[in-house]
Amino acid sequence: MQIEVISSVNEAQADRFAHRTVIVIDVLRATSTIVAALEAGAAGIMPVETVLEARALQCSGHLLAGERFCRKIPGFDLGNSPEEFTADLVRGQRIVLTTTNGTRALHKAMRADYVLAGCLNNAAACAQSAAELRRDIVLLCAGSHNEFALEDGLCAGLIIGELQGISPSAVEMNDLGAAMLGLFKSSDGKLRELLLGSTTGRRLMKNGSVRDVDHCCRVSVSSIVPRLQGDMLA
Amino acid sequence: MQIEVISSVNEAQADRFAHRTVIVIDVLRATSTIVAALEAGAAGIMPVETVLEARALQCSGHLLAGERFCRKIPGFDLGNSPEEFTADLVRGQRIVLTTTNGTRALHKAMRADYVLAGCLNNAAACAQSAAELRRDIVLLCAGSHNEFALEDGLCAGLIIGELQGISPSAVEMNDLGAAMLGLFKSSDGKLRELLLGSTTGRRLMKNGSVRDVDHCCRVSVSSIVPRLQGDMLA
Repeated sequence: MQIEVISSVNEAQADRFAHRTVIVIDVLRATSTIVAALEAGAAGIMPVETVLEARALQCSGHLLAGERFCRKIPGFDLGNSPEEFTADLVRGQRIVLTTTNGTRALHKAMRADYVLAGCLNNAAACAQSAAELRRDIVLLCAGSHNEFALEDGLCAGLIIGELQGISPSAVEMNDLGAAMLGLFKSSDGKLRELLLGSTTGRRLMKNGSVRDVDHCCRVSVSSIVPRLQGDMLA
Repeated sequence: MQIEVISSVNEAQADRFAHRTVIVIDVLRATSTIVAALEAGAAGIMPVETVLEARALQCSGHLLAGERFCRKIPGFDLGNSPEEFTADLVRGQRIVLTTTNGTRALHKAMRADYVLAGCLNNAAACAQSAAELRRDIVLLCAGSHNEFALEDGLCAGLIIGELQGISPSAVEMNDLGAAMLGLFKSSDGKLRELLLGSTTGRRLMKNGSVRDVDHCCRVSVSSIVPRLQGDMLA
């Protein structure tokens, strides 16, 4: 099994995804939020790239959720904080989500055979699902402001470690994968601190969203593995 | 002092280098070779991007050196193996060098205030020189086949650690810098093994160039810091 880590959505070339499983990673916060929404009973999440596209879908009874640069979009029902997505609000609902990087990354991944949403919260389950799909795997780190984001790289390293645990002899990876695996292994016990020190972590702290970082840094606490089916993650 | 790590030459945008010191890193092997050549007494190294440009300079008495995809270029005096650059061959000589990624990275960096060549061999001296130049610093990893190369990332992490040692409170870095610093710290005692396992390391092993990896993985054994002056590193 070949594993390729891509450092940010800007680096993603859609034609490299053919016949592969792509795991899109946006730890702070899109893919953590998608996992939280499905955990809370949402019927599905439709990732869209622009605020306009999201608004156009409002009339069809979807909830609108999203952010631009860590802030909720005016007029939307929900932001992009996983803890907002409570069962009361989202159970049985279809949610349209647009975020700065995560939903762009999901769209870029659409040529893959399978597209999963991964984060620290569902890392072990995500690795298990990806291994069962029996394709080479791309870990597409969404990044932040078109650049590599530390938290996404750590999550990629964690998922590679899980994949190695599933089939120790069968995993080959690119150099960035080897780097992220080494980085994650060295992060033992310091994950929260590293997330708080990352570019996005610092921005979230400034916005009073430390609780989101606390939510997103928990490792493998969810068995939900969002998978793109048509234009909906479920 | 701001430190930015760029993952490969493809990611480098020349306009981000203004008013900064750029350290170009191509551990396997361009910047290690440049250090070795100056250590052996070469008068200067002129990095050029193409084989044609190099050949055009042959008549002016320069030695031609370089590689394409780890192999020596037909008709050139030298390849890109640091151990070829002995005092007998290169003392007092000007050398034109063209390589797959390293010389491209040096050219991209030319808009910076200062351009240095860094590798594991000269990491401590390179960090010291860069600190003394009192600019924000870009660590431009040349990479391999337009992608991140593990050995360049490890070297970036090492140089950041050295810079932190010089002015502990004054160093800020981007997320890739934080990742590479964490990675290097976790590599203790495994540097040779990591280099041999990297994409370029495996290719060099296949070509019978393990000695080059042994040469290039020695940490801070040289005080030579090549600096671009006009079109010549000296």
